[in-house]
This record gives sequence, structure tokens and C-alpha cells, in this order.
Amino acid sequence: MTSCNESVIRITSVFKGAFVHSTHTSPMEILENFILGVSEAGKIVFIEGAYEQENLAKRWGFRNTDITHLKDWEFFIPGMVDTHIHASQYSYMGTGLDMPLLQWLNTYTFPAELKYNKTEFAEEVYNKVVKRTTGMQLATIQHSHSTLLLGEIADKIGQRALVGKVCMDINNTVEEYKETTEESVEETKRFISTLLQRKYPQVKPIITPRFVLSCSDKLLKDLGFIAKNNDLHIQSHISENTEEVQIVKEMFPDCKSYTDVYNKYNLLTNKTVMAHGCHLTDKELDIFNQRGAAISHCPNSNLSLCSGLLDVRNVLKHKVKIGLGTDVSGGYSPSMLDAMRRALDTSKALTIQTSGYETLTYKEVFRLATLGGSQALALEDTIGNFEVGKDFDAVLVSPSIPGGPFDVFAGDTFEVVVEKFLNLGDDRNMVEVYVAGKKVVPFKE
Amino acid sequence: MTSCNESVIRITSVFKGAFVHSTHTSPMEILENFILGVSEAGKIVFIEGAYEQENLAKRWGFRNTDITHLKDWEFFIPGMVDTHIHASQYSYMGTGLDMPLLQWLNTYTFPAELKYNKTEFAEEVYNKVVKRTTGMQLATIQHSHSTLLLGEIADKIGQRALVGKVCMDINNTVEEYKETTEESVEETKRFISTLLQRKYPQVKPIITPRFVLSCSDKLLKDLGFIAKNNDLHIQSHISENTEEVQIVKEMFPDCKSYTDVYNKYNLLTNKTVMAHGCHLTDKELDIFNQRGAAISHCPNSNLSLCSGLLDVRNVLKHKVKIGLGTDVSGGYSPSMLDAMRRALDTSKALTIQTSGYETLTYKEVFRLATLGGSQALALEDTIGNFEVGKDFDAVLVSPSIPGGPFDVFAGDTFEVVVEKFLNLGDDRNMVEVYVAGKKVVPFKE
Ligand SMILES: [Zn+2]
Ligand SMILES: [Zn+2]
Repeated sequence: MTSCNESVIRITSVFKGAFVHSTHTSPMEILENFILGVSEAGKIVFIEGAYEQENLAKRWGFRNTDITHLKDWEFFIPGMVDTHIHASQYSYMGTGLDMPLLQWLNTYTFPAELKYNKTEFAEEVYNKVVKRTTGMQLATIQHSHSTLLLGEIADKIGQRALVGKVCMDINNTVEEYKETTEESVEETKRFISTLLQRKYPQVKPIITPRFVLSCSDKLLKDLGFIAKNNDLHIQSHISENTEEVQIVKEMFPDCKSYTDVYNKYNLLTNKTVMAHGCHLTDKELDIFNQRGAAISHCPNSNLSLCSGLLDVRNVLKHKVKIGLGTDVSGGYSPSMLDAMRRALDTSKALTIQTSGYETLTYKEVFRLATLGGSQALALEDTIGNFEVGKDFDAVLVSPSIPGGPFDVFAGDTFEVVVEKFLNLGDDRNMVEVYVAGKKVVPFKE
Repeated sequence: MTSCNESVIRITSVFKGAFVHSTHTSPMEILENFILGVSEAGKIVFIEGAYEQENLAKRWGFRNTDITHLKDWEFFIPGMVDTHIHASQYSYMGTGLDMPLLQWLNTYTFPAELKYNKTEFAEEVYNKVVKRTTGMQLATIQHSHSTLLLGEIADKIGQRALVGKVCMDINNTVEEYKETTEESVEETKRFISTLLQRKYPQVKPIITPRFVLSCSDKLLKDLGFIAKNNDLHIQSHISENTEEVQIVKEMFPDCKSYTDVYNKYNLLTNKTVMAHGCHLTDKELDIFNQRGAAISHCPNSNLSLCSGLLDVRNVLKHKVKIGLGTDVSGGYSPSMLDAMRRALDTSKALTIQTSGYETLTYKEVFRLATLGGSQALALEDTIGNFEVGKDFDAVLVSPSIPGGPFDVFAGDTFEVVVEKFLNLGDDRNMVEVYVAGKKVVPFKE
């Protein structure tokens, strides 16, 4: 039977070289001199030591000339998964980080997001943001027509994305940027059905209440129902800074915690990813664990807005799924490499404060950015590492490009070069991006 | 008299466009549509609003065709001053940051520095490090012949640099990498006299005891004398992590503090720059202030090695001179932009911990990287900003280059673009570097 099934799988690409990825048992495996085959459907069919090349070629019917050989020092990493990014905040990325969350929303965010009712503006910005990022792309904006446009652009370029229309019906001081509860619910339904009808292979909708303080009880309740009835992903924000946590406590005296509010409205499922969670208690983490809900750790944003230092080690101890997010533009960088570096900084700042703290390693942070992200988005069966059966989502890294951001020296080992890339590399080193076996074009402008 | 002096000054370059710099009263001035003239000697002769162009042209005798016009969104910033970098640690930059200071020195640093007794290795690495960095270049290594080579390379390329031969005669576990007290002193003297004889215009020697724990009393004493007799710059490390501070306390029971040890040996002068200082007490900062000694804040290194979070606000309150350093490779990045960003992160981490903390602004951090650095190296009369009479040390920033690291949108203001560059820019945006009016060539490979 196996051979019969195998015979209908057509291998369309074979790569030979180094593959760096994470597994459940190892935060980083460096597979030097390996060979990986991708099927027509974009799935990884085999990944084995190159000494198996002849056997594999016979079994899967490819020739030596079909093999793409990675060059010196090149290696593949899995597509990095950005579990939290506001595409609509991209235009002011890198600016306006001089105030805490609640003031920041009213001063910068809401006025900027308002502009996306103009389709031309949305098109200009979304075309840029989708090209800037590698891996998952979450958009969170108010206007369903431009959110659909974002989905269309992601699909055209070949990116994988969960796209959400932000819902908010209360506590918004920007007069022109408002919707009623009913409008919010109806637009959400319209957005979801339209996006699903388009049958994009890698672009899916995600239910997106902005956060508890922006949504009425009725809205939260309705969104929870829509998600449940359609088995949809859910994203929102939780416990980002202490002022916000305090206000939520006062607004919901009958709920035991911030987490309890989302839980009550069926918004905490095994397809939920909540950004931040800096100030979650151990009890709340237990609820996350029980519900199978995930946290998106956005360290650049948490530092930039002085929100808090998430204790990732504690989240991991509670066996809560966790990935990394850029949170553009609360975070100023769209780069997942930056997210890894800032996650490490946060862990090191906690180490400085806390005697005996078990600092995250750069390998663990790499796992958060790849396998962790796939778990956080409930896509672990599809992406996250180079296991057979998963989609081939990958970035080809070329460490020693001319004019690149760091130098490789003759005595370097492969592990050293990988570490240099993670600390010092940038988009110049990421020369090709694959999603489900297909090259993302144009990856760069 | 003035006009008589002026008549002999020949203007060799005139730039027209935007200039961004710091002054004592303003952390960031954006001078849009200004015109700046540079003399044959590389000094800034005038900087005025462009409406003065005609008057200036008459007075200084240049023609319209002599003017270099900056392009859209381009601006000049002062050359950024890296007040602390180990050129000899460049080869393992970006790796090996998984242990605290004292273990790290023995495991990574000393074995790596040992290699620099081979001139070919030193030449390969130093050629790369000098090209990677903008502004000041401090080298700290053991072997005087390769340290001289570093000076030679910096001069050839046209970089400004203070170059030091590291001195250490005790507490070194790497057997082959040792010198006696006498060797250390003699090599230092030989290095200084040779370098001074070469009369490089922008490359000067700096006395460099590694730090208290690596130097005997005799060595510290002799180095203090050499510095005093020759009016030389001094650099070293102080109060980097708590373990080190504790050991110094035990080794010098008769000294009141770590600072007191350096002070006792005449190593704390108004030409001294001490790296780190994370754990200095207010009393020690008072001594720094009295002596006119400076601190080099190396936030990437302090985070990477979990050394501590320097309270820059407190240093500024004590009116102690302070600049930024990359501390390659305790810090993993050679970029002063990274140093600025990590300084901001450190200040934001302190804000998260400390209710009411006055966070540094990105403009203040920009001042640390430019004017602050010039003060820290006692070079404020020569460099640090675009004041008339100073050398024209500058970086031409081009924010909207094709394939660059961030996007400029039509509605952006100049201030927004500067902030984007500081948060998201990299070496691609730094298209020209000038030291004392001369273009540094080749700036990049
Ligand atoms: Zn967010
Ligand atoms: Zn150092």
C-alpha cells in the first residue's frame, strides 16, 4: 500500500545542504549535509542524511540534476511565524513610542487606522508590509473592504496569513473611527463569508475583538458565537500593562480575572492567540493551559511602550503554547529576528533582576519564533519545522553575501554561523522564502 | 582682523540640506534647509539657514556649482562615537554570550585574543572591523605589533581612533596568553612612542589596563604614571557585574570603592573613559564628576552578559560625562544604532521596574551617541556636533534607498523620518562617512 501511495506523489523540488530547525525535544537541530524533498502539493516528503541520496532518488524518482545544492554556509530555517502584527499600523512603524498603551491608542493608533477606509492608502501600505515580513501575517483593521484587500495581496504574493477585521464598539475617543455593535458584528460576518468564499489556500480569517476595553459585552458574546459556529481562529490582546489590568478588574467585578472575561465569552479556545500577557497570574496561565489557548510574546512592543517583561520561562513551565510577535507598530520592527533578540533581552533583564533565574537560550528563542509560533496559531500540523508531512515553509539564509551585515571567518563552525545570523543577520541574508513549497514572489522590492 | 583670518581659510566643501545634531540645550535639533561649509583643514566654517547662501558665498568665495545638494529625505548626522569596542574580539562577535563576565573572559576572550600574535590574522580581522564601524574605534589588545597595525589600518582608511594595548599581568587562566608586569609596562611605552612618532592625524594612543582584577598594584601604578607624564587618554572597565564588584571589594579592603582603586592609581582623570559602571554608587559617581572622568554605557553588552541595567538618568543627574559603546563582542553588534536602541530598552526596562522613572527619550539617546561620546573621550572641542570650529565628522543618511530597511511615506515629516532611521535604519542608509572633512574610503567593502 505504501509504495502504491508513494508512487502517486510527485517530487517537485529537492534541496541538499543544511537545515536548521526545532523539535519538541531539541530547541535547535543543525542538520548538515541533508537532503529534503518537496511534493507537488508543497509538502515535505523526506528529509534524510545525504548519504541516503541514491536510495531516495530511486524510491521517489528524481535525478541528480533535479537537486538544488545550497552554497557555502547557506542553510534553510523554517518560515518564521509572526503571531501578532497590525498591518494597519505599518505606516507609522518606528515612530511614536513615547507613551503608555492606553494613551498611545488614542493618540497614534486610532487616527492612523481611520485612513484605511481609503482603499488606495490601504493598497500602498499593505503591499509594503506583506513584502517586509516573512511568515505569518496578521492584519487587524476596522474596515472590512481593506481587510479583504490585505487578504488578496497576501494571496497574490503567496504569503500565509490569518487576516482579521478589528472589532471595537466602545471607549474610542476618535469620533470618526467608530462602529456600533451591530455594524461590527455584521461586518465581521460579511468579511468572513467573503474571505472563505475566495478559497485562498493559505489565507484564512480570524475573529478579532481589539481587547476587552474596546468591546461591549454584547460584542464579545457575539464574536465568541461566530468563532464557535465556524470553528475559527481568534486573536486579541490581554494583560499588556498594569493600568489596563486594573481597569478591566474594575469594569468586570464579577469576573475573577482578565482571562476569565475572555473565557466567559467563549473567546479562549485552542485556536486563540492572545498578545502580550505580561501580567497574567499563575492561575490565569492554568486557564490558558486548560483551554489550549496561546500567548503571543511581543517583546519589542512590551519594551517600547514600557508595558512589562513577560516571564516566558514561567509560561513554558505552565505548558502554555507561546510564539513571538512583532506587534508592529507598538513594536517598531517588522523583523522576527528582532523579536527573537528582544525576547532574549527581556529574559536577560529578568535574569539581572532575579537571582537564579533560568535565562532563555538563543536556541529556545529560535524555537519560539518557529515551532512555538506554529503551535500558538494551532498550525503545528502544517508548519513550524521540517518534519515529513508538513508544508515546506522555509527561508533560505545566505550568511556570507557581499555587503552583508556580518562576517564569516574561515575557522567558524556551522553553529557559530547560525548564531551570528540570529544575532546580526537581517533581510539581506534571507535570499528566498518558500510557502507550501512555492517561492514567495516578489519577496523583496 | 577677523576678515584677514577668514581670507586665508579656503572652503573645500559646501553641503546644502538637512543637518540633525545635538547641543547642550537641545537633545536633537533638525536643521532643515541649511548650508554648511568645510575648510581645507576639515573644519566647519559656517552652518546657517540656506537663505544666507548668497551672503556666505560672497564672504567665503564659493560658487553655486560648488554646492553639494542633499537629495530627498537625506540628512547629515555627526559621526557617531563608539566609546568602547574591542577590535580584537570582532572575530567572534555575535557568538558565545551564554555566561557571565568572569567565566566569559576565560572561556572566549583570552583564547581569542591570543590569536592576534599572528599578524595575518590581525590584519584580516582589523580590516573588517574598521570598515564595519562608524566613528571612533577603540582597540584593546595584548600584542603591541598588531595594535600598531590597527592604528595603521584606521589611518589608511581615514578613521578617527584611540588605540590601546591591553595590559594584564594577573588572574589569567590561559597559560600562553600572559605577560609579566615589566613586559606589560615596556610594551606599553614602546607602543605609545611608536604610535606618536607616526604622527597620524586622527589616531592616538590610549592607556588600557584591562580592569582592576587583571592588573597588579604595580602595573596600575606604572600605567597611571605613564598616562600622567604623557597627558594620555585612559580606558578601562569598572563595576560591570556584581560578582566582580564583590571580588574587588575583597581584594582592596583599604579602598572605599571600586572607583577609589582607579583613583588611587591616578587612572581617573578628565581623559578617562570607564566602560559599564552599572553598579556604581552615588558616591562613586560624585568622584567621577569631581575627576571629570567619563562612563561608556554599553547596553548591548550589559544585557547580553546579564551584567546589569545602568541607570543613565542617575548618571546624568550627577553630571558625569557619558557616551555609548558597543563593547564588541561582549555586545554582539558593532552598530551604534543598536547601541542607541539598547540604551533605550535599558531605560524602558528600568521604567517598567521603577514607578515614576523618567525614561530616556530617543533624542537624548541620540545625544549620548554623538555629543555625549565626544565628551566622554574628552574630544568635545573637536567633534560631537556641527558647531563652527569643530571637525566635520559626519554620516550622510539616505532614508529612502531602494531595498532599504524601512519605508518612507508621503505624509511623513522630517522628524518622523529621523525617528524611523534611528529605530529601523542600518548601514545601508549610511551612504557616506566623513572624518575631518575627508570621505572615509572605502567605507564599505
Ligand atoms: Zn497588538
Ligand atoms: Zn569591554
